[in-house]
Amino acid sequence: MYHNEKADLLNRLKKIEGQVRGIAKMIDEDRYCVDILMQIAAVRAGLNKTGTIIMEGHIKGCVTKAIKENHGERQVDELMEVLLKFIK
Amino acid sequence: MYHNEKADLLNRLKKIEGQVRGIAKMIDEDRYCVDILMQIAAVRAGLNKTGTIIMEGHIKGCVTKAIKENHGERQVDELMEVLLKFIK
Amino acid sequence: MYHNEKADLLNRLKKIEGQVRGIAKMIDEDRYCVDILMQIAAVRAGLNKTGTIIMEGHIKGCVTKAIKENHGERQVDELMEVLLKFIK
Amino acid sequence: MYHNEKADLLNRLKKIEGQVRGIAKMIDEDRYCVDILMQIAAVRAGLNKTGTIIMEGHIKGCVTKAIKENHGERQVDELMEVLLKFIK
Repeated sequence: MYHNEKADLLNRLKKIEGQVRGIAKMIDEDRYCVDILMQIAAVRAGLNKTGTIIMEGHIKGCVTKAIKENHGERQVDELMEVLLKFIK
Repeated sequence: MYHNEKADLLNRLKKIEGQVRGIAKMIDEDRYCVDILMQIAAVRAGLNKTGTIIMEGHIKGCVTKAIKENHGERQVDELMEVLLKFIK
Repeated sequence: MYHNEKADLLNRLKKIEGQVRGIAKMIDEDRYCVDILMQIAAVRAGLNKTGTIIMEGHIKGCVTKAIKENHGERQVDELMEVLLKFIK
Repeated sequence: MYHNEKADLLNRLKKIEGQVRGIAKMIDEDRYCVDILMQIAAVRAGLNKTGTIIMEGHIKGCVTKAIKENHGERQVDELMEVLLKFIK
């Protein structure tokens, strides 16, 4: 699970939410496209980092538990499905 | 520029902001990791879409203008720099 | 492990190798950039597919075995390190 | 165009081709999955680099020329289509 990282994850998402709002403001103020794109790339990187923290917690938590209880196959199939959304 | 798409872009970012807040809520409520990861992947896709709309406007606007005025090289260098942040 | 998929993986890599050689030929023959880029994107997709098949085999094989033998943590750390190379 | 970079691009593709063959050999020899995945990530990075060099040449060549001749719109649409294959 991601419970140990809950506060850290919520902080990251709070920051990302602020960045997204900042990007909307930049667009509203007709700011330069390239500056906006750089900000979008930064949010993307922040989301990827958040996602990999959750993934790691998920593998060390749920997936590990399921494997130990001998029903890990379904968990791994589900994990692969979500990985395919990130590996493109 | 992205001015023709301003309303559309602001709608997209408003939606993304709501999704990010929804992800924080899911974490706060200890929701299932895989569901959270699927939501993060959806936001990532939404950001990419937003970014490519801005890129297209930028190329058709600023870059095209700079090329016509014979100082496009610097604009293209700058564009490549930002593309490198997205193509990984 | 990826042993059940060995023949499939080797076929995929043989195909990828041929595509890479084809791209070199396209460049040598001064073919149109966009057609070359589309081919590069196709190879990238083929590599991602190959990578995820190996990942799945790795998780269902080595990682599962290590978890059952109670030394899964190191395997998962290593897996996360490699995932970070793909999730960008 | 990518003509100035032709030799460099062919060298890169020759290296990538060798790496892909090396990955097939690793699989054939039952080498460790994580080492194979690291190699696949390296090839992916090499392909992205090759692609961005071609993109830059394409924008500075064909796209710039088309824009100067006032028929750039179609070129930019085509460029965006190929960018969508890389930005995922």
